[in-house]
Amino acid sequence: MAGNTIGQLFRVTTFGESHGVALGCIIDGCPPGLALTEADMQHDLDRRRPGTSKYTTQRREADEVKILSGVFEGQTTGTSIGLLIENTDQRSKDYSNIQDLFRPGHADYTYHQKYGVRDYRGGGRSSARETAMRVAAGAVAKKYLKQVHGIEVRAYLSQMGAVKIDKVDWQQIEQNAFFCPDVDKVDAFDELIRNLKKDGDSIGAKITVVAQNVPVGLGEPVFDRLDADIAHSLMSINAVKGVEIGDGFDVVEQRGSEHRDAMTLQGFKTNHAGGILGGISSGQDVIAHIALKPTSSISVPGETITKQGESAEVITKGRHDPCVGIRAVPIAEAMLAITLMDHLLRNRGQNADVVTTTPKI
Amino acid sequence: MAGNTIGQLFRVTTFGESHGVALGCIIDGCPPGLALTEADMQHDLDRRRPGTSKYTTQRREADEVKILSGVFEGQTTGTSIGLLIENTDQRSKDYSNIQDLFRPGHADYTYHQKYGVRDYRGGGRSSARETAMRVAAGAVAKKYLKQVHGIEVRAYLSQMGAVKIDKVDWQQIEQNAFFCPDVDKVDAFDELIRNLKKDGDSIGAKITVVAQNVPVGLGEPVFDRLDADIAHSLMSINAVKGVEIGDGFDVVEQRGSEHRDAMTLQGFKTNHAGGILGGISSGQDVIAHIALKPTSSISVPGETITKQGESAEVITKGRHDPCVGIRAVPIAEAMLAITLMDHLLRNRGQNADVVTTTPKI
Amino acid sequence: MAGNTIGQLFRVTTFGESHGVALGCIIDGCPPGLALTEADMQHDLDRRRPGTSKYTTQRREADEVKILSGVFEGQTTGTSIGLLIENTDQRSKDYSNIQDLFRPGHADYTYHQKYGVRDYRGGGRSSARETAMRVAAGAVAKKYLKQVHGIEVRAYLSQMGAVKIDKVDWQQIEQNAFFCPDVDKVDAFDELIRNLKKDGDSIGAKITVVAQNVPVGLGEPVFDRLDADIAHSLMSINAVKGVEIGDGFDVVEQRGSEHRDAMTLQGFKTNHAGGILGGISSGQDVIAHIALKPTSSISVPGETITKQGESAEVITKGRHDPCVGIRAVPIAEAMLAITLMDHLLRNRGQNADVVTTTPKI
Amino acid sequence: MAGNTIGQLFRVTTFGESHGVALGCIIDGCPPGLALTEADMQHDLDRRRPGTSKYTTQRREADEVKILSGVFEGQTTGTSIGLLIENTDQRSKDYSNIQDLFRPGHADYTYHQKYGVRDYRGGGRSSARETAMRVAAGAVAKKYLKQVHGIEVRAYLSQMGAVKIDKVDWQQIEQNAFFCPDVDKVDAFDELIRNLKKDGDSIGAKITVVAQNVPVGLGEPVFDRLDADIAHSLMSINAVKGVEIGDGFDVVEQRGSEHRDAMTLQGFKTNHAGGILGGISSGQDVIAHIALKPTSSISVPGETITKQGESAEVITKGRHDPCVGIRAVPIAEAMLAITLMDHLLRNRGQNADVVTTTPKI
Repeated sequence: MAGNTIGQLFRVTTFGESHGVALGCIIDGCPPGLALTEADMQHDLDRRRPGTSKYTTQRREADEVKILSGVFEGQTTGTSIGLLIENTDQRSKDYSNIQDLFRPGHADYTYHQKYGVRDYRGGGRSSARETAMRVAAGAVAKKYLKQVHGIEVRAYLSQMGAVKIDKVDWQQIEQNAFFCPDVDKVDAFDELIRNLKKDGDSIGAKITVVAQNVPVGLGEPVFDRLDADIAHSLMSINAVKGVEIGDGFDVVEQRGSEHRDAMTLQGFKTNHAGGILGGISSGQDVIAHIALKPTSSISVPGETITKQGESAEVITKGRHDPCVGIRAVPIAEAMLAITLMDHLLRNRGQNADVVTTTPKI
Repeated sequence: MAGNTIGQLFRVTTFGESHGVALGCIIDGCPPGLALTEADMQHDLDRRRPGTSKYTTQRREADEVKILSGVFEGQTTGTSIGLLIENTDQRSKDYSNIQDLFRPGHADYTYHQKYGVRDYRGGGRSSARETAMRVAAGAVAKKYLKQVHGIEVRAYLSQMGAVKIDKVDWQQIEQNAFFCPDVDKVDAFDELIRNLKKDGDSIGAKITVVAQNVPVGLGEPVFDRLDADIAHSLMSINAVKGVEIGDGFDVVEQRGSEHRDAMTLQGFKTNHAGGILGGISSGQDVIAHIALKPTSSISVPGETITKQGESAEVITKGRHDPCVGIRAVPIAEAMLAITLMDHLLRNRGQNADVVTTTPKI
Repeated sequence: MAGNTIGQLFRVTTFGESHGVALGCIIDGCPPGLALTEADMQHDLDRRRPGTSKYTTQRREADEVKILSGVFEGQTTGTSIGLLIENTDQRSKDYSNIQDLFRPGHADYTYHQKYGVRDYRGGGRSSARETAMRVAAGAVAKKYLKQVHGIEVRAYLSQMGAVKIDKVDWQQIEQNAFFCPDVDKVDAFDELIRNLKKDGDSIGAKITVVAQNVPVGLGEPVFDRLDADIAHSLMSINAVKGVEIGDGFDVVEQRGSEHRDAMTLQGFKTNHAGGILGGISSGQDVIAHIALKPTSSISVPGETITKQGESAEVITKGRHDPCVGIRAVPIAEAMLAITLMDHLLRNRGQNADVVTTTPKI
Repeated sequence: MAGNTIGQLFRVTTFGESHGVALGCIIDGCPPGLALTEADMQHDLDRRRPGTSKYTTQRREADEVKILSGVFEGQTTGTSIGLLIENTDQRSKDYSNIQDLFRPGHADYTYHQKYGVRDYRGGGRSSARETAMRVAAGAVAKKYLKQVHGIEVRAYLSQMGAVKIDKVDWQQIEQNAFFCPDVDKVDAFDELIRNLKKDGDSIGAKITVVAQNVPVGLGEPVFDRLDADIAHSLMSINAVKGVEIGDGFDVVEQRGSEHRDAMTLQGFKTNHAGGILGGISSGQDVIAHIALKPTSSISVPGETITKQGESAEVITKGRHDPCVGIRAVPIAEAMLAITLMDHLLRNRGQNADVVTTTPKI
């Protein structure tokens, strides 16, 4: 299907199904000389890993990543980096009962129609399990961005169902199982999940991802704008149905005099734009929000049809996340980092000669 | 900057500045045998054209497109199609007074920082004038999609400021200057624009774009998902700050039992997904929404700085749209059509062998 | 370095160093429904495998390929196919003595200058060991081409040193260790290799690769011509210094009246063009020739310098092929198959509507 | 057909048919700040222009290029550069008599089969007229390479028919109509052409193209090797049937001890490799040779068939080059320059951090 690659100079290509032998990816274009070990990726993989809290699926995967190439004597060589994660806890039997069903809200029907054949075990390639490799590749990008350019990419859960956060305390995010930056909302999230489990239902969520210390000038108008490529990479995450840059949909009701960010010698006064003007980074924080739909893998009975074309009722047993938005936090960070990394290299290639005299604000 | 191309098999590359000699584009990958004349593009170009109503900029451009290649004896030959539109009404003097200013909310600052030099006349390459070529290329895609596959791509203005439409009557859209499908909201839109003009201010807008009769199977997981590529192409439109597929950000508060679209032998019961599941079209209408920011080209004084690094006040005179969302309607149609066209060809290349036996619903 | 991918719709991305943990690749874009097992690839891998005859390196590698994804219940699913081959016989000590030397004729110096760091063990990424994954991916393309379109891709050794073949008997090729189609030249090849081993020297070679039953119409002018893409894929094979299509360099002395292939109702009378006209396949056999340089890994002392910038003498011990051209035969087949496969899918995507009425000749 | 673009960071996309309204191209990715006027391109266009000497076609084209965008106040802005050349001397009637014939050795048959329709006037898109835009784009690359990096790209005619040059005097190349660097061979070339014209026949040729002062490190293994991309870009030139790097096909008979270029503290002792090792430039001159077939547009009667499937005889009247190799000299320079430019930007993007301590040799 030739759709498993993202990026142009920093290029990530992945493979692997939910219940296949293994997941893998190739990172092509990572600059040489970056100190890199499995540990650099394992931290983010553990943040995304299933079975780590009572709020997520109980599937147990070690998600141990192995570096197969591209690193020599502890540093990247500039050649393609091969990564591998073996699947250990498949339990395919959980799925045998639905191999002929098209689960509503899933990719079962579309994959079957497109390919005429599909790996029905846990959704096969359409499963969010695939995102483990995005997180591994993203960790490499995050390390380079941080170390070489001081760019920090972080995300948090900003809303789950009707519960919204009121404040952002970066220190709090890793202190709770929800990646919630507002300590006063943790109990509300906890209660929401408990009720959903009781009902065998699921809920949507909103994630905010922020990149700090992004240099001015990233993004290639008019189609490869930084915001357009961020929209692409974030919308490619399973379950995402919406992407916003800066004020996003709030701009619909704003006036120009209210939206435009005034510039002063001390810098921009506000950041309605989300750090991007004309598709190019402005030097302010790059801010994006994504909406994740509630998973359709729930035990509430649903109406569907079978491969044979008969009506049927579906109840998904298996082990699932009541809110896929929680584990999507490190995935959102990874995708933003991959996109920024790609644009950093692209801009460096094309604008190495540029010397601007203006005071950077 | 190598960012002026979109698409893989149906590839559109554009050039041109707001006040340059001409705008142009190359359509590469249009299948042979399609009857094509300038008239096929002129209709959509006229819908986007400035100076057509009192609600848009008074700049007068004929926007007459010329076909320079790729068409022989009235039909496409399969070779690259060259298109050209000459600029006629530049009035560069309008901009001389702001050549040293960085207009807040514009790309002036980012272009200057990225390239060290910029064409300040009317925003140069960052001007929405560039979108004329998107509309021309989109018209070719729309014609092919309609003629060969019966796919219809249409858009409308669904909100301007606080005014939202309540109903969609496809017949109404071309009956008013707002591309408004709800006849009862036209007066409210008219009043809103009149007030904005009085204040010398601008407003944001929301556009909904819909593709009907889309076949099942378009989209290449996992990164070139149809929704990810739609997000990319729509976010690449000037002033767009948010993209939604189907229910978009409403999914944040939805439950799985409420969001998933039940499947019956008669078809899907609802379309919360917006016609895309797992990144692949489901055969339902593909529905997307975009948020457009209010233009920063307003006569309300703004705070900014100069290239020389001094504080300054900016007042944009020139001729501008109080709501760029209005003329963005045909642009949104064009971008969705270009993306669908590309995926149609890609899917055809890779899945020509596929024969599915399931009843298409 | 973002150069490890080839193809657009049938896309192959590889990783792995000569003495790393493993080699791997991702095949993206293989159509669904193709019956595929490791055995389908193992045959060609064994043909390329080191240590199989006294004419090639004695390094012993099982080169057992594992399918990690993209195949379910014995057939491809249309999703990305992950392949892995573990390295078993590295003997890195063989190289420790030359880690500070830049071996003349090798990539040591250029990799060091480009990346500032390199995996010196066996040439790391620049080693021909990388081609094992090309052969595996090529075997998938070959199977699809053969099974779905009856296209046969085969190669043979047409010259080694001054010894040229006089005739082509396809039956002979697999009957000798040289992939030689002329039984009368096998002894001469054998003697040549024995003399080279005595001298500790190496020799160049010429390979001819042919694709039969190629449909008319493959190739996308003007830059992605079929011949241009074949030149790219064949020149990307280690040690290749020249590529010819059809008569190749002989055309320099030909007249137009002699070169052009006459067309009759029975078909083309000759095939000087090598099956490609204007960059598009003509339906005749696609014929290409490549020149492979003699390996520089020889025990004849050579003059060079060290990383520290001192003069030095180099003698490559290790285990090497006196003629890398021999094992390159299956590699050449693989690369041509990958390129034809990619163009087959591209042409199918863009020209599905085309119906020509001319008698195909 | 989506094959009209070459390059990744320095991207050239072209359109135009031999007898269409105009030829055009878009250069995307040219760094900002380069002083550029039409005159910079006109010199090379004039070298390629038809009707300039009695040795080439008498078709008279001014080939005046216009810059439509991407240049402001005399320098490039980093945005896409639109170029246009209007066709002035089409004489389509010359071709009406062969619109139903498939000229042997031409792309008539393959275009017809691939697209089902073709612009038969002068070969339409398959005509070498298309190369005018390559020369224009190449001139931009040549200027940047020369000015910013001191890289010089030049070519010459090294053989026509059986007549080979014996020496290379760079001063001579522009002194004769053959781009011949050996003053003693000019008369022989002249006589050869005169005899061909008498016979109404044509002849093949060999061109050598050289780039000097190329930095070490250009090229992205393993598929986007510099030599592989050069093979692609040179083989994409009309009539080219073979490409060699360095010693090319001579390596077949060479021994390793003879081929490998010894390295000393004073530099490489020889340049059999043609300046590329392991797909990466070594800092030596990059040297390539190409073989161009004799044009099939000759007045010697030829055997062919018609679109209707009948036998026919073809005699090409029109105005043609007895040796297309002559005018291909500036085209070869252009294509090598475009490829080097692209790799220069790519390498800069990915290896900006690299600091090597070795003495550059």
